[in-house]
Amino acid sequence: MPFGNYWQREEVMPLNQLEELQLKRLRWVVRHAYDNVPFYRRRMRELGVHPDDIRRREDIARLPFTTKEDLRANYPFGLMAVDRSELVRIHMSSGTSGKPKVVAYTERDLENWINMVARCLYMVGVRRGDVFQNMVSYTLFTGGLGFHYAGERIGAMVVPSGTGNTEKQLQYMLDFGTTVIHATPSYALRIKEVAEERGIDPKSLPLRIGCFGAEPWSDNTRKRLEDAFDIKAFDSYGLSEMNGPGVAFECEEQNGLHIWHDHYFVEVVDPETGEPLAEGERGELVLTPLTKEAMPLIRYRTGDVTYIMDYEKCSCGRTHPKIHRILGRVDDMIVVRGINVYPSQIEHVLMNIPEVGDHFQVLITRNGSLDEITVRVEMRDEIFTGELEDFRRIQGKVSKALQTELNIRVNVELVEKGTLERFEGKAKRVIDLREEL
Amino acid sequence: MPFGNYWQREEVMPLNQLEELQLKRLRWVVRHAYDNVPFYRRRMRELGVHPDDIRRREDIARLPFTTKEDLRANYPFGLMAVDRSELVRIHMSSGTSGKPKVVAYTERDLENWINMVARCLYMVGVRRGDVFQNMVSYTLFTGGLGFHYAGERIGAMVVPSGTGNTEKQLQYMLDFGTTVIHATPSYALRIKEVAEERGIDPKSLPLRIGCFGAEPWSDNTRKRLEDAFDIKAFDSYGLSEMNGPGVAFECEEQNGLHIWHDHYFVEVVDPETGEPLAEGERGELVLTPLTKEAMPLIRYRTGDVTYIMDYEKCSCGRTHPKIHRILGRVDDMIVVRGINVYPSQIEHVLMNIPEVGDHFQVLITRNGSLDEITVRVEMRDEIFTGELEDFRRIQGKVSKALQTELNIRVNVELVEKGTLERFEGKAKRVIDLREEL
Ligand SMILES: [Zn+2]
Ligand SMILES: [Zn+2]
Repeated sequence: MPFGNYWQREEVMPLNQLEELQLKRLRWVVRHAYDNVPFYRRRMRELGVHPDDIRRREDIARLPFTTKEDLRANYPFGLMAVDRSELVRIHMSSGTSGKPKVVAYTERDLENWINMVARCLYMVGVRRGDVFQNMVSYTLFTGGLGFHYAGERIGAMVVPSGTGNTEKQLQYMLDFGTTVIHATPSYALRIKEVAEERGIDPKSLPLRIGCFGAEPWSDNTRKRLEDAFDIKAFDSYGLSEMNGPGVAFECEEQNGLHIWHDHYFVEVVDPETGEPLAEGERGELVLTPLTKEAMPLIRYRTGDVTYIMDYEKCSCGRTHPKIHRILGRVDDMIVVRGINVYPSQIEHVLMNIPEVGDHFQVLITRNGSLDEITVRVEMRDEIFTGELEDFRRIQGKVSKALQTELNIRVNVELVEKGTLERFEGKAKRVIDLREEL
Repeated sequence: MPFGNYWQREEVMPLNQLEELQLKRLRWVVRHAYDNVPFYRRRMRELGVHPDDIRRREDIARLPFTTKEDLRANYPFGLMAVDRSELVRIHMSSGTSGKPKVVAYTERDLENWINMVARCLYMVGVRRGDVFQNMVSYTLFTGGLGFHYAGERIGAMVVPSGTGNTEKQLQYMLDFGTTVIHATPSYALRIKEVAEERGIDPKSLPLRIGCFGAEPWSDNTRKRLEDAFDIKAFDSYGLSEMNGPGVAFECEEQNGLHIWHDHYFVEVVDPETGEPLAEGERGELVLTPLTKEAMPLIRYRTGDVTYIMDYEKCSCGRTHPKIHRILGRVDDMIVVRGINVYPSQIEHVLMNIPEVGDHFQVLITRNGSLDEITVRVEMRDEIFTGELEDFRRIQGKVSKALQTELNIRVNVELVEKGTLERFEGKAKRVIDLREEL
């Protein structure tokens, strides 16, 4: 099925045609939602907008937003636009609180989704003959089955190993000659650690490609992953409300993520006002899936912070405009002494300091009326000499680097390697103790 | 794709044509194994048999057996008959000890497998519009993905809920209107219990169909499951070495399992001597998959005890001969005071006694030189009055029923409901303490 170096012909469709296609599909999906989902008909009437009003691309701004809360409030099937007998799959994302969010798929939705993820894997070089170890949760989480079907579709040998049991995961990598992994970046760093404990140089594994997602990670972490395993590491973006993984992905350029414009209408808005922002302006990513039959979502507020990159045709030949790697989540933003801090900024700073290990933790506390940030970081055995002087030097260096980036003073605690909790899935690195007081 | 009441036309192929097809495919698979798997070429040469010697169906008896140990010894890829680039999936079964067994699939193997499981689900009445909750492990275990793909292929709405979190599983059944479940019988009984604890009558769930497998269960357990949930309960048989689930399945008759003769050559042999047994004679099931490309297995010793049922065309119209429900495993057989005991016999007896609850445990101990069996059974609250006299009556009743079936004396301990361990996957009911002494 591949089309030269591309999985699908649509990846290199000229931008003007792509935008025409977007408008056509936008009109379809708005009509589909209006006709078949009472929730949208009500919302659109409230805003005085009708499907026929969507004539140009800009008209999308007239449409209502959809939020995570709307999904929860309509649990389980309130937003479905097709008969239940048309649904062939359910996925869920539990979130941190309250009712889970349900997403559902028709056969065609699945087919589109498989091909979008396959585009991504094919784009970073996964081919028939590769051994693809899929180290994320299966069952109701979209990450496992999403990548699984796509790897199989390409013809790679899929090892559906799921999460957990790091020792065995490593053994499979050795036994099956794994060339491609999919995991969270923090879990990949955990595997590196276990390999080293067993006296195996992670570089000696036959890995070529790592696909990492589900949590924001920086270019400095990329460098660490690439150096540790001698691989190319690519950023994967998706969310279950948009099918799952495969919404956007880095190409070989590793400079921004191509987002599949034939399936998603992309906006970035001011998270406070909801006003559309221009190319290059940071804000909340808002996506309208253009082809989803089961559960169309209009202007879905992803909660992810990014910006649309300047359009210039990518050297890979794909015409689909890129977004910057996710900078954080709107609701992950920590406000400390009136200053906005994203955990991803902290990660970015730490992973650039050679003396700092791969694991860290951020504690927010209240001291009287004053908020304080404490960053606990593991040191790297190989570099730390054990001398008090060296300890103070590293502490000062980390502290200064964080202060420069964040514009506030940060307490730094250096801890021994192996002290902090490890994660198999999304890392939970921020502990906000203020609410408990 | 359905063919009338059948998923595939092959299900009603006249038996003589089916047997012709078997012979043709047997010749193909023997040639395939001989040409492409050094292990089989060596084995066949040792036995002085060549693919050209397989001219009639009976000639299968000239071929070597394959055992679990052969799979382990050839871990991971020693038995593959195709280039690694042809493989698109790996599954594993860990077994209780030693190296895991790996199985692999080509695209065509997967396609055959999906259709075989789809035949089974379609046979018991699963259709587009059904909500199919698949409550078994995903990832490397074949049960999860095997049923998942088939449910989706039929067009049922698949809820890939996996194992664990019984409270949530129950909630999904309520929220999604689940009509079909796949689970181990012991897990289904656990769900019944949790429902009752929550004050939900399991009968009030919209369930119609239960597919139960992965552990032997008796007709008395079937009756309990059917009564508890107001469903029809069907026995599912498969093993990862034969792709996974979908090897054989009960039809609406609930009297024996149709085994797909176009994909498996079926023998039953004496587990000691390996000699073929006649229709109706109990022994070890030996299967030769006839269409597996990636990993052909010749005369695989399944370890499962059953017999081939008298051939008469089933009222469902399917021509594929049936096997009796699995009676136990060759290596599950417990020898106590020189008498062969299968845990499934104990289950059969217990589930027929109304005063006995759904959970039990079998302890084997050595008292001096004498082996003893102790059966611990939970009582049913609804029936047990709490009087000592009633207690003694039940104890005597259970003890006598077991002695009649097993021909040895058995200690019976009655315990309160909720005392014994519950299982989400295969139940581990036999605890043999003799080896530890
Ligand atoms: Zn590119
Ligand atoms: Zn039948």
